[in-house]
Amino acid sequence: MKVTVLVRPKVGILDPQGEAVEGSLRRLGFPVVGARVGRVVDLELDTADPVEAREQVQRMCAELLANPLIESVEIEIPDAGGSQA
Amino acid sequence: MKVTVLVRPKVGILDPQGEAVEGSLRRLGFPVVGARVGRVVDLELDTADPVEAREQVQRMCAELLANPLIESVEIEIPDAGGSQA
Repeated sequence: MKVTVLVRPKVGILDPQGEAVEGSLRRLGFPVVGARVGRVVDLELDTADPVEAREQVQRMCAELLANPLIESVEIEIPDAGGSQA
Repeated sequence: MKVTVLVRPKVGILDPQGEAVEGSLRRLGFPVVGARVGRVVDLELDTADPVEAREQVQRMCAELLANPLIESVEIEIPDAGGSQA
């Protein structure tokens, strides 16, 4: 089963990469008001159960994929909708 | 208007970050078959027209946000659905 995890810097957390992207886009003439950069992690899991998959991915996020102090996580599982964590 | 851009390494393109994540998750005991890591860019644009927004973001991707040789881009615009490019 394929699962997509979006890891973003939380609101209020400094995001130098986003600031660089915003500045560069403005210099190129694009009317950008803000830009934030995070990571997308596409996982192929050895399970077909969406409930089990979500549980596993939540543990992966806690143990490796994200820093809960400064990052928010969104887990997208097919046939199960997305969720904010 | 908020727009989300997902930039991923194309199929077949080496992804050392994804390999590192996959290896680390396996060592932690997770039954992961594959992992690929890309970027998520959240943009706030100075336009309310979804068609204009998509056009602008496609140019941003071509000029700055992605390398079309090795990366694929998915643009998510509210009220307009997603698109692969």
